[in-house]
Amino acid sequence: MSWNSKITKVEPNHLVTRGYRQEDLIGKVPFSHVVYLLLKGVLPSPAQGTMIDAILTACIDHGVTPPSAIAARTVASGGVPLPTAVAAGVLAIGDAHGGAIEQGARFLQEGVKRMKEEQRSKKDMASLLVRESREKKQRLLGFGHRVHTADPRTKRLFSIAEELDIAGDHCALSKAIEGELERTMEKKLPINVDGAIAAISSDMGFDWRLGKAFFILGRVAGLSAHVFEEQTMFKPMRKLALVDCEYDGPAEQDLPKGYAGTHGKKGE
Amino acid sequence: MSWNSKITKVEPNHLVTRGYRQEDLIGKVPFSHVVYLLLKGVLPSPAQGTMIDAILTACIDHGVTPPSAIAARTVASGGVPLPTAVAAGVLAIGDAHGGAIEQGARFLQEGVKRMKEEQRSKKDMASLLVRESREKKQRLLGFGHRVHTADPRTKRLFSIAEELDIAGDHCALSKAIEGELERTMEKKLPINVDGAIAAISSDMGFDWRLGKAFFILGRVAGLSAHVFEEQTMFKPMRKLALVDCEYDGPAEQDLPKGYAGTHGKKGE
Amino acid sequence: MSWNSKITKVEPNHLVTRGYRQEDLIGKVPFSHVVYLLLKGVLPSPAQGTMIDAILTACIDHGVTPPSAIAARTVASGGVPLPTAVAAGVLAIGDAHGGAIEQGARFLQEGVKRMKEEQRSKKDMASLLVRESREKKQRLLGFGHRVHTADPRTKRLFSIAEELDIAGDHCALSKAIEGELERTMEKKLPINVDGAIAAISSDMGFDWRLGKAFFILGRVAGLSAHVFEEQTMFKPMRKLALVDCEYDGPAEQDLPKGYAGTHGKKGE
Amino acid sequence: MSWNSKITKVEPNHLVTRGYRQEDLIGKVPFSHVVYLLLKGVLPSPAQGTMIDAILTACIDHGVTPPSAIAARTVASGGVPLPTAVAAGVLAIGDAHGGAIEQGARFLQEGVKRMKEEQRSKKDMASLLVRESREKKQRLLGFGHRVHTADPRTKRLFSIAEELDIAGDHCALSKAIEGELERTMEKKLPINVDGAIAAISSDMGFDWRLGKAFFILGRVAGLSAHVFEEQTMFKPMRKLALVDCEYDGPAEQDLPKGYAGTHGKKGE
Repeated sequence: MSWNSKITKVEPNHLVTRGYRQEDLIGKVPFSHVVYLLLKGVLPSPAQGTMIDAILTACIDHGVTPPSAIAARTVASGGVPLPTAVAAGVLAIGDAHGGAIEQGARFLQEGVKRMKEEQRSKKDMASLLVRESREKKQRLLGFGHRVHTADPRTKRLFSIAEELDIAGDHCALSKAIEGELERTMEKKLPINVDGAIAAISSDMGFDWRLGKAFFILGRVAGLSAHVFEEQTMFKPMRKLALVDCEYDGPAEQDLPKGYAGTHGKKGE
Repeated sequence: MSWNSKITKVEPNHLVTRGYRQEDLIGKVPFSHVVYLLLKGVLPSPAQGTMIDAILTACIDHGVTPPSAIAARTVASGGVPLPTAVAAGVLAIGDAHGGAIEQGARFLQEGVKRMKEEQRSKKDMASLLVRESREKKQRLLGFGHRVHTADPRTKRLFSIAEELDIAGDHCALSKAIEGELERTMEKKLPINVDGAIAAISSDMGFDWRLGKAFFILGRVAGLSAHVFEEQTMFKPMRKLALVDCEYDGPAEQDLPKGYAGTHGKKGE
Repeated sequence: MSWNSKITKVEPNHLVTRGYRQEDLIGKVPFSHVVYLLLKGVLPSPAQGTMIDAILTACIDHGVTPPSAIAARTVASGGVPLPTAVAAGVLAIGDAHGGAIEQGARFLQEGVKRMKEEQRSKKDMASLLVRESREKKQRLLGFGHRVHTADPRTKRLFSIAEELDIAGDHCALSKAIEGELERTMEKKLPINVDGAIAAISSDMGFDWRLGKAFFILGRVAGLSAHVFEEQTMFKPMRKLALVDCEYDGPAEQDLPKGYAGTHGKKGE
Repeated sequence: MSWNSKITKVEPNHLVTRGYRQEDLIGKVPFSHVVYLLLKGVLPSPAQGTMIDAILTACIDHGVTPPSAIAARTVASGGVPLPTAVAAGVLAIGDAHGGAIEQGARFLQEGVKRMKEEQRSKKDMASLLVRESREKKQRLLGFGHRVHTADPRTKRLFSIAEELDIAGDHCALSKAIEGELERTMEKKLPINVDGAIAAISSDMGFDWRLGKAFFILGRVAGLSAHVFEEQTMFKPMRKLALVDCEYDGPAEQDLPKGYAGTHGKKGE
């Protein structure tokens, strides 16, 4: 019973990752390019390397507002090692937090494929996808944000993608959907940073199932800083979050008579 | 390269845990007694079974005030499966949250051992331990609580331990320390629920390194209820915790000139 | 911004869970019944209490064969606190491991609902469901096991459910599906322990979304025993698992010329 | 009740991290330099930026041999989302796995401080530290490796540190200890990659409590690749690890007579 892996060959004094000796990568290939190598299997071109670097930086941190930062700091507050608290933050990265990269990329990749098969224009395809989502009552992932109406990260990522000639059909379809949403909705729903990464990583040929990996890889930097700040600047078990919660369960009552019977007697 | 385990023998259609067939345990031995069997290696006496059951129930839940509940609900709010969110709650169980059982039990077990070796009375030993802790500026674990001055769980656990003749030297030393603290401190520091479990589990002969296991085993019930409530009653990414946080890092500034050089250019 | 919870009211020296004072529950209501109270919102009848207790015990452990035990022991081997390692085991409880309770219960609950609406017999409904699954190439969850052909836990759980008059339509439909599978398949696919819990918990009126919670609550007992055994009987970083893995990634090569340029120079 | 954080200011359409607007960082400052900014609070010099980049790359992956990779793949095999499995890998990063960076850095930082206070030479200090560790039977962390006798990553990291004039007292003391170990031991115990990062990060002025953060930040790249490979190339619940484990617990036996009494009866 043996199995294979295409990631790293481990031999005494010899480590080869995706074909390259680790001592050749260290200090020669920028870390963000090495991330690309690990996820894609080949080294990036200079443009692809710059793009993946920008994507990682766009994910670093959003203060203490998202679940991942609150979870990491709360867990740190229980008095645990740094990796345990950072991992708790990673656990919070789910379908509702960072998840729009994964599902947004899937949606765009299927949309572009269908657009080509059905020989539709971007505008036509966008209009159809928005209509279908509305009929199925499905939320379009990657549009709108709790805090930002014009997310500075989104704008910057798209501008780099354009400059480097990486932006292609997926970015274009994404922008066409944004336009269609603006035309047909009362509320503005601009592409958010998750949506931008979904579109750009799709134009870079990444599998949509890696969507949350980009987010994790960037966000772990911010989470490490949060946990370190929590561990060094605050006392454990401090009242970290103002949870103002009211009990509205059943009214207080005595146990029914059946209980308090056999249990709890000496020598039972 | 083979290794051994004393926990469960797995054969086709045959599962033996700590010597007992699982089909014999199921529905015949109460689950809390099975927990004892797993942790201690033997079945409990009726009194020991009632005591471990009471200990597990004493750990079930403390509302949304502790880090474990906040972490579990926050992670659930990211849109992840139930076990991921429950596990995040377990991660928060650390030296500052539930950890007093482990360290408190260690302290009491070492204290009782020393008391016997040095042939001291409980009162004398308690007085010495309090003085030493004060000199080393070490907090005595298992005394005092953020919310309760007379924790109803503590009282009930000690009363069951007395009734069942389980309370022994460790409970007595713990109460002697409580008395000594009251005599010498301005602030009252009564034994808390962690301290009670530390004392009672020590009198039951449990290894102090299992201290956090009792807490986990009981608390997982409350955490599962919290995660289920969060997933079924609330929307993902709701503003769960009022985090009122102010940025006091470096003032906003431009990048130094050195940057913005090579990076970000097409065809680089 | 306040929110509600129906689980526990926390006041100084006063803890009320699902309407009952915790000091009334401790040592009076068996822990497994308290689990039922937490998950269902009301205390169980004696029969329901016995049934939930049996379900929890049926989940306690399966040796070091499942992902959860391997993960918990492997993480413990990295030199971390007990809760961190136990939580890693809980993380492995997913759609493929313990997940058949959740999806199996959903399937049975939808099946029973449809059976009543369409006024079909159990046999007829079972035959239809098996046919549909085959057409959609969907695996029926809760049938068949990697190790057991006649799982001793399954037999025991169903026999308790019968004895206590808890077994109802969901158990009956589950058995009808098992019969249908036996008639139409070459390979035997008996109801496994996940499938039995899916059927019985559905007959007890539990929401299918709690499926993984039963499994976690029981399995945490076994995982705690595994982590404790690993931490006390073995050295950290021992070769725990025989991973016999061969590298079949790209052949070893030099870096392309473009790299090794700017990076790594002093005073750059 | 408000608290402060020096990490990120979050305002609508405006994100400032450690004083810099995120849109200025994205695509302009290499991601590894942004990691330095997050952990240290200031941007690195070019040399420091290259060094942190090299450190992160030196941590990326070690195949499926370490606990973190086995745990991540095992948890993935349970059928869970990618972040859940990656987080399980992070949990395995503990005192015995990656932990030598933290404790090694602490040891070196205390050693250098003492060397200066006691006005000792490096050789003298190294000899004293080795002697003391031997007397206290404490293992020196950061020396020796399970697989490598001349770790290619270590050599490369030290050579970059020299080239960039970053290597200082901590690197020198570390090498003096390596020399002392070679003189006084029969077995060779060369500085391993953890030890090299401990020494270099200390010379860069990093707090030793960040030791595991470097390791996490690099290793998350490898863990993401492992989880993705597991999820896309293998079936869930495959026999991932050859765990050849023998049960040596109590012999199989019947339940004692006391049990099987009240439990399990209808209408009880």
